[in-house]
Amino acid sequence: MSKEQNEIRNKANSSSRPRFAGIKTFMMLPHSQDVQGLDFAVMGLPFDTGSTYRIGARFGPEAVRSISALIKPYNAYHKINIFDYIKGIDYGDLNVLPGYIIDTYEAVAEEMRLFMDNDVIPVVIGGDHSVTLPELRALYKKHGTVALVHFDAHLDTADSYFGKKYTHGTPFSRACDEGLLIPEKTIQIGMRGTYYGEHSLKESTDRGFTVIPADEAFDMGLDNVIKVIHEKVGTSKVFVTFDIDACDPAYAPGTGTIIPGGFTSREAIKLVRGLSGLNFIGFDVVEVLPDLDPSKITSCLASNIVFEFLSLIALMKKNLSRG
Amino acid sequence: MSKEQNEIRNKANSSSRPRFAGIKTFMMLPHSQDVQGLDFAVMGLPFDTGSTYRIGARFGPEAVRSISALIKPYNAYHKINIFDYIKGIDYGDLNVLPGYIIDTYEAVAEEMRLFMDNDVIPVVIGGDHSVTLPELRALYKKHGTVALVHFDAHLDTADSYFGKKYTHGTPFSRACDEGLLIPEKTIQIGMRGTYYGEHSLKESTDRGFTVIPADEAFDMGLDNVIKVIHEKVGTSKVFVTFDIDACDPAYAPGTGTIIPGGFTSREAIKLVRGLSGLNFIGFDVVEVLPDLDPSKITSCLASNIVFEFLSLIALMKKNLSRG
Amino acid sequence: MSKEQNEIRNKANSSSRPRFAGIKTFMMLPHSQDVQGLDFAVMGLPFDTGSTYRIGARFGPEAVRSISALIKPYNAYHKINIFDYIKGIDYGDLNVLPGYIIDTYEAVAEEMRLFMDNDVIPVVIGGDHSVTLPELRALYKKHGTVALVHFDAHLDTADSYFGKKYTHGTPFSRACDEGLLIPEKTIQIGMRGTYYGEHSLKESTDRGFTVIPADEAFDMGLDNVIKVIHEKVGTSKVFVTFDIDACDPAYAPGTGTIIPGGFTSREAIKLVRGLSGLNFIGFDVVEVLPDLDPSKITSCLASNIVFEFLSLIALMKKNLSRG
Amino acid sequence: MSKEQNEIRNKANSSSRPRFAGIKTFMMLPHSQDVQGLDFAVMGLPFDTGSTYRIGARFGPEAVRSISALIKPYNAYHKINIFDYIKGIDYGDLNVLPGYIIDTYEAVAEEMRLFMDNDVIPVVIGGDHSVTLPELRALYKKHGTVALVHFDAHLDTADSYFGKKYTHGTPFSRACDEGLLIPEKTIQIGMRGTYYGEHSLKESTDRGFTVIPADEAFDMGLDNVIKVIHEKVGTSKVFVTFDIDACDPAYAPGTGTIIPGGFTSREAIKLVRGLSGLNFIGFDVVEVLPDLDPSKITSCLASNIVFEFLSLIALMKKNLSRG
Amino acid sequence: MSKEQNEIRNKANSSSRPRFAGIKTFMMLPHSQDVQGLDFAVMGLPFDTGSTYRIGARFGPEAVRSISALIKPYNAYHKINIFDYIKGIDYGDLNVLPGYIIDTYEAVAEEMRLFMDNDVIPVVIGGDHSVTLPELRALYKKHGTVALVHFDAHLDTADSYFGKKYTHGTPFSRACDEGLLIPEKTIQIGMRGTYYGEHSLKESTDRGFTVIPADEAFDMGLDNVIKVIHEKVGTSKVFVTFDIDACDPAYAPGTGTIIPGGFTSREAIKLVRGLSGLNFIGFDVVEVLPDLDPSKITSCLASNIVFEFLSLIALMKKNLSRG
Amino acid sequence: MSKEQNEIRNKANSSSRPRFAGIKTFMMLPHSQDVQGLDFAVMGLPFDTGSTYRIGARFGPEAVRSISALIKPYNAYHKINIFDYIKGIDYGDLNVLPGYIIDTYEAVAEEMRLFMDNDVIPVVIGGDHSVTLPELRALYKKHGTVALVHFDAHLDTADSYFGKKYTHGTPFSRACDEGLLIPEKTIQIGMRGTYYGEHSLKESTDRGFTVIPADEAFDMGLDNVIKVIHEKVGTSKVFVTFDIDACDPAYAPGTGTIIPGGFTSREAIKLVRGLSGLNFIGFDVVEVLPDLDPSKITSCLASNIVFEFLSLIALMKKNLSRG
Repeated sequence: MSKEQNEIRNKANSSSRPRFAGIKTFMMLPHSQDVQGLDFAVMGLPFDTGSTYRIGARFGPEAVRSISALIKPYNAYHKINIFDYIKGIDYGDLNVLPGYIIDTYEAVAEEMRLFMDNDVIPVVIGGDHSVTLPELRALYKKHGTVALVHFDAHLDTADSYFGKKYTHGTPFSRACDEGLLIPEKTIQIGMRGTYYGEHSLKESTDRGFTVIPADEAFDMGLDNVIKVIHEKVGTSKVFVTFDIDACDPAYAPGTGTIIPGGFTSREAIKLVRGLSGLNFIGFDVVEVLPDLDPSKITSCLASNIVFEFLSLIALMKKNLSRG
Repeated sequence: MSKEQNEIRNKANSSSRPRFAGIKTFMMLPHSQDVQGLDFAVMGLPFDTGSTYRIGARFGPEAVRSISALIKPYNAYHKINIFDYIKGIDYGDLNVLPGYIIDTYEAVAEEMRLFMDNDVIPVVIGGDHSVTLPELRALYKKHGTVALVHFDAHLDTADSYFGKKYTHGTPFSRACDEGLLIPEKTIQIGMRGTYYGEHSLKESTDRGFTVIPADEAFDMGLDNVIKVIHEKVGTSKVFVTFDIDACDPAYAPGTGTIIPGGFTSREAIKLVRGLSGLNFIGFDVVEVLPDLDPSKITSCLASNIVFEFLSLIALMKKNLSRG
Repeated sequence: MSKEQNEIRNKANSSSRPRFAGIKTFMMLPHSQDVQGLDFAVMGLPFDTGSTYRIGARFGPEAVRSISALIKPYNAYHKINIFDYIKGIDYGDLNVLPGYIIDTYEAVAEEMRLFMDNDVIPVVIGGDHSVTLPELRALYKKHGTVALVHFDAHLDTADSYFGKKYTHGTPFSRACDEGLLIPEKTIQIGMRGTYYGEHSLKESTDRGFTVIPADEAFDMGLDNVIKVIHEKVGTSKVFVTFDIDACDPAYAPGTGTIIPGGFTSREAIKLVRGLSGLNFIGFDVVEVLPDLDPSKITSCLASNIVFEFLSLIALMKKNLSRG
Repeated sequence: MSKEQNEIRNKANSSSRPRFAGIKTFMMLPHSQDVQGLDFAVMGLPFDTGSTYRIGARFGPEAVRSISALIKPYNAYHKINIFDYIKGIDYGDLNVLPGYIIDTYEAVAEEMRLFMDNDVIPVVIGGDHSVTLPELRALYKKHGTVALVHFDAHLDTADSYFGKKYTHGTPFSRACDEGLLIPEKTIQIGMRGTYYGEHSLKESTDRGFTVIPADEAFDMGLDNVIKVIHEKVGTSKVFVTFDIDACDPAYAPGTGTIIPGGFTSREAIKLVRGLSGLNFIGFDVVEVLPDLDPSKITSCLASNIVFEFLSLIALMKKNLSRG
Repeated sequence: MSKEQNEIRNKANSSSRPRFAGIKTFMMLPHSQDVQGLDFAVMGLPFDTGSTYRIGARFGPEAVRSISALIKPYNAYHKINIFDYIKGIDYGDLNVLPGYIIDTYEAVAEEMRLFMDNDVIPVVIGGDHSVTLPELRALYKKHGTVALVHFDAHLDTADSYFGKKYTHGTPFSRACDEGLLIPEKTIQIGMRGTYYGEHSLKESTDRGFTVIPADEAFDMGLDNVIKVIHEKVGTSKVFVTFDIDACDPAYAPGTGTIIPGGFTSREAIKLVRGLSGLNFIGFDVVEVLPDLDPSKITSCLASNIVFEFLSLIALMKKNLSRG
Repeated sequence: MSKEQNEIRNKANSSSRPRFAGIKTFMMLPHSQDVQGLDFAVMGLPFDTGSTYRIGARFGPEAVRSISALIKPYNAYHKINIFDYIKGIDYGDLNVLPGYIIDTYEAVAEEMRLFMDNDVIPVVIGGDHSVTLPELRALYKKHGTVALVHFDAHLDTADSYFGKKYTHGTPFSRACDEGLLIPEKTIQIGMRGTYYGEHSLKESTDRGFTVIPADEAFDMGLDNVIKVIHEKVGTSKVFVTFDIDACDPAYAPGTGTIIPGGFTSREAIKLVRGLSGLNFIGFDVVEVLPDLDPSKITSCLASNIVFEFLSLIALMKKNLSRG
């Protein structure tokens, strides 16, 4: 498939076809469910049953795919054409059962084994943040406990909401409870806004997570944030999860639980680029709500973050091949 | 409370306070959770976990309350000031657990007993259509099986979606299975659009329900539709449920599963007014999605339908008092 | 100016210039404040201080002018190129003092004398409905008491709001109090929705006005409505005022106090066309709120109503010239 | 492919997969460019360079595909599961060169030969109305001159705009000039609004076309409109083109050149259904502008019209098989 | 009430009730008009008659209340749960007379005496900026002349607009004229954009006010801005007024008179936090226009600013109790 | 005309007329096509046929004019009332042929000679970026080759798109090919995002252009960027072109090909102000798409950039007069 895919890719990336045309896949990647021999698969996880306030992330994958037509394969910062080092597909959307979080968790964890079994790095477009838990479960079966880099306005380590253990505010409590994460290699960046109380802030640190709130990140400087991430994660296998509300509402209005004071797009991209060199096993970007994104700047930003994820994979493969 | 409430009402309905001002309750009704001695209680049921396509009805009650400030107490068609015959409150919202349909069903059915125990007619603002099931369960405990008048673009009598029994496409299958309805006194009006197959159309009639699709309704004339409803329902206790998508998308764009060819606002109001004389025990209007309703015409239409519901209660009380 | 204007008009109406281009005037009419020798002048009255709920009609004239670029000069129903019989301008906007209704009334009544003095028929784009009062005052100085044809969802004959005599809900009470109208030749069409009480309905009829609520209009048929208008108005000088909320919110979402159950666009245009033959002295269309009109269908409908007004003037001039 | 396609279709149409999930094709049809053995192919023609006012129909195909997820295969009016009689695909989008109308015409006419050569009926989602000309050119090579049924608010038979022969206001002048149409079997329905002059109205009739303006259509009744269409077209091969602005702006706000007074959704669907029995060789629906369609009711209506087109093909095939 | 209120507050702030549910008050505070024994009262002042350009701030209080559901009581920057030190209510909206600025001024100043008489700090959600004048009048009766900290893109010290003394562009001229302010302790921050002339800039400084335009604020650094504020205000009683257009349109699009180059959300919050230690007697945030705020980021930012105001009160009370 | 214009200007800029009123011209400038004796003319170039993705810049001039009502004549940064030094008009829109890029190029270049012949500096509001080519052609006839300062997210130096030489992605390739520019005095600032490949980056530098990508601009500091521009351009005649997408999508959502990571409004204005002292012969701002700009912040930013352009002309004239 490599050759065929290459041709399709070349065609897609040439100037010969208008960017608004055609069936929409991420970056005009071929749509396939055959994952053999691939480096990565982009996939949607259109599930938003875990949302506790504004809702609609089920349409996130469609919106991110749509605007991703603007993205081209050369990353000028990293000086790399990603497709020189990696090949992949748009798998389409994982199966979900809207309204049923536990069933969806099971279905997702099961379906994602396909990627694990084939050594394909999953790059997931959510969905609300509750979807990261089944992703981590699927990864655990292959990789065991992993490090986590988590960008977000919220800690998402509440114990429960309304007495319920599974919502978009609890995935990392559960992941920790289930032993999917290495707590001392779990780092959360960008938290801000208000809390239920001082105890809320400890919900993460009590588990051994490292927390760099937005204010602290700005004070220490983003270069130092990046340094801390590398120190904490080291060479461990790492999953990266990016809640788009880590960015300020001015940059990401189309999300559910907006909090002023977040990252600009420049800062967000800088942070993701700074992860280069880690040992990635998976990625997701979550909480894009297209109905609240009239000019599509939120899904555009998310699509660029996915592209930076792909660039990180490409750099990793490039370095491996140099070995 | 009657006197005090009356005063508040008079103040609210006078021209002395701008309609955009104040804490928003339905029609500026007093907000209270004391239901003793009331005829009706308007309440929100902000639950949308049952939604299978566009989602966001959790914000429906807020939007309907907001625009209801435009409604005044005199119904010129029925020639009645509704508050001359009935008194009531805005109860606020029933407790829900977003993401958890079965738990929410239990909580709602439990909380609604308050109204049953006090002979207060509940007038519910949804929420997606899945919320009608717990309402019917609550009513059953008080009233036994009831007749149903159901306006909708969809039958909502699928057996299941994605293998799941509880969604916004199945409430009336479940209500029938649970023995909450009198099938031969259950009538569904306004269905249209496309179906999975011929069998879909039989899902209702096989249960003994009467179905008047939109096309048939227009062909027979709305006066005859009203006549059939009265014939079917007779003097039985009846619940009225109005899915706003019974109206055409031009009139109700802010809903989840739009289908062209529906009722105009004039037709919708005429149909609800035509129910006068039935023996009402409860009402709901569902599936208002404010994020898809930029000019608020959908929530405005819904608020007028709620007002027509209140007028039906007032007429019923008026007639009883004459009895 | 006639020749020059004609050329500009011809150019404007040809296919040689894109409709989205150029400084926006109504129908690409020349913008001038020289009114000598004209038949009509279109003008904006961007005043919305009288609004009691949603507000923003100050941007109505701009929006109606913008979309009026779509309108061409031939009226196929009346079989008339309006510019064969009338000439006119876009005068721009009348001077207003936002926030100051009484001062604005004085300024408007004063400025409008220019048209009266030059026998130019004013065609006004509002603004909220409070603007009709100063128009009627200006007309009175020239014409004395006049007949009124009033399309609206509301009677606008409240005595006062919040104890204030001048709002967009009271212009016709004031006009009547001030002796500007011939009550028995004042006819109001399209009222619907809810009222403060039975007395509200009498506020107009007690003054001697004729009221044809929307329901009654549909029952009697629009042809009969038109017949009644002609019977009532006869050959008296008549002012026509069209509140865009006479139309259903589906057709005119961009207005302040929406009420379901109104006229369709087809019905609205039919009613205005049916006025042909009356003795017109002025027109206005009011209550277009562009910020609530995302697809601009409301301002488009209003611009077509203005065009129908101009057609009525053209027909009147045509008939006069035949004498 | 038939079996495989059938399975995909069955899966797609079952209740097992949420309608918001997956790569978006029309009605979840398989995406393929292999057209052998098919009855129909749905395709996008995302070209809007011919637009003379509001623009953006290049995103029309994407929007119509997206909301078409709501459509199911059973047509209750015609009592037919369309896939019992026809099979087809979503071909994706035809190649276009944005900004270059003549080149695009050539490319489209060339690429569409694929369907002609394989006896596949093309069902095109535009694009502005300029796209119908290359479709007719492609059809001509196979079928010779054809009959045309044209629903629209505009005649689209101007000779030129701004001195240019090819725009979205001229396709049927050109088609007539090029001898692609049978003028006496060309019928245009729904025209309304204003014109440059009396001559504009004759631009069609002078060519021998039949024109039924909206007003006339309402006066004569839609059943009679349908009768006239059948009489005019008879058994000739016929192309059906539906400009969404044939519908009133209340029903189709998301289009470029809105004119009040158009068809309701009910009327539009009735008219299309009424075409049953003609000898169809192709269809298109054009002028959907998603950026002006905040609640997506326009693209939803268009997607239903495409479904009715497919139903007409299915009925034709069903009748042929009975033959 | 303290205990009861505490319980309500605890319930409101727990995770037991979804944030989208319930009658909307600021931060789910109890709605009451009994102000005895309170530290603060949040209230709406839905008045926009003073607006000179885009209008609609009358819906500001409703929008800010709605999105304030996202706010929790713990301020991580100040390390304080505000309800540990202060108690308060959502008073609802002050009485206004839309369209009548002078009458509204009187009514507001009168009604606000309730808070002064009970030593309750008013925290007002506007409304356009004209509302600050009656607030200052009310405060004057209790506190005499006060210091003012004023964040805004505009000076709001014009002498008049259109010859009128009372608009949203003149409140601080009037406040100065009326002797409500201590000019040398009045400081204005964030001004930018264009002016009528050099004299405009002097309208404030000539009165003795200190002006720190946006450019100067960035040049000197926000820490120094904060230092200057403290130096100027000292221990005087101070009112804080925050016009949301102090923030850049990217962060606060939903306001009337946008000017590029303003504060980011981070900067705005930093500035407000920096006020800690002053002797506060009242606050307002003004000029939120929900109809121009499709993703609600403006009202969200405003709600966070109100929360920071409450935090400042809590800190003040905390320090007082330590004495 | 100077005196008359001055009076109009004074009136326009006084506080006597509401900013939302009147026929909309840029900054309420007089609309005229008589350019004799002027220093500058603002004009629209409503052409978007060159757009390759989102489209609609044809409505850019109207939107920029509308919101420019907020702009006043005094520039506080430069301490200059621009009308003390320059006089000018709003010329209206240049003639375009939508859908026909080559014809439009010819028409524009021809019509713009009017300004060259009269030594009037053109200040153009686009339109997509393809419009800069005919502007440069017109300037060339008067001035010969010129320097270029180009702010943009994109290089716009592709050789062709879809095999076509003229699109909004190629104007500077063509300008270079046609010898309109001095390559070593052509400087491009703000590029970012993704590319087709490493070669894309060389498309500009191979032509001798200087490129300062966004990342580099931030790294070197904007003061240094300004210094480099002055060094490169020197005293040559220079044209300034500002693609609004140079700004981040948070600040300029209403444009076609958004890329995160751009300039803030503060940075953009700082850069334009920094150009002071160059020898300007013309300006444009392009790619404003109003339909994607719900709160009008993009057109507001663009209108401020036009004002900064005018300020640069005023400063140049001021310096010359001192000379």
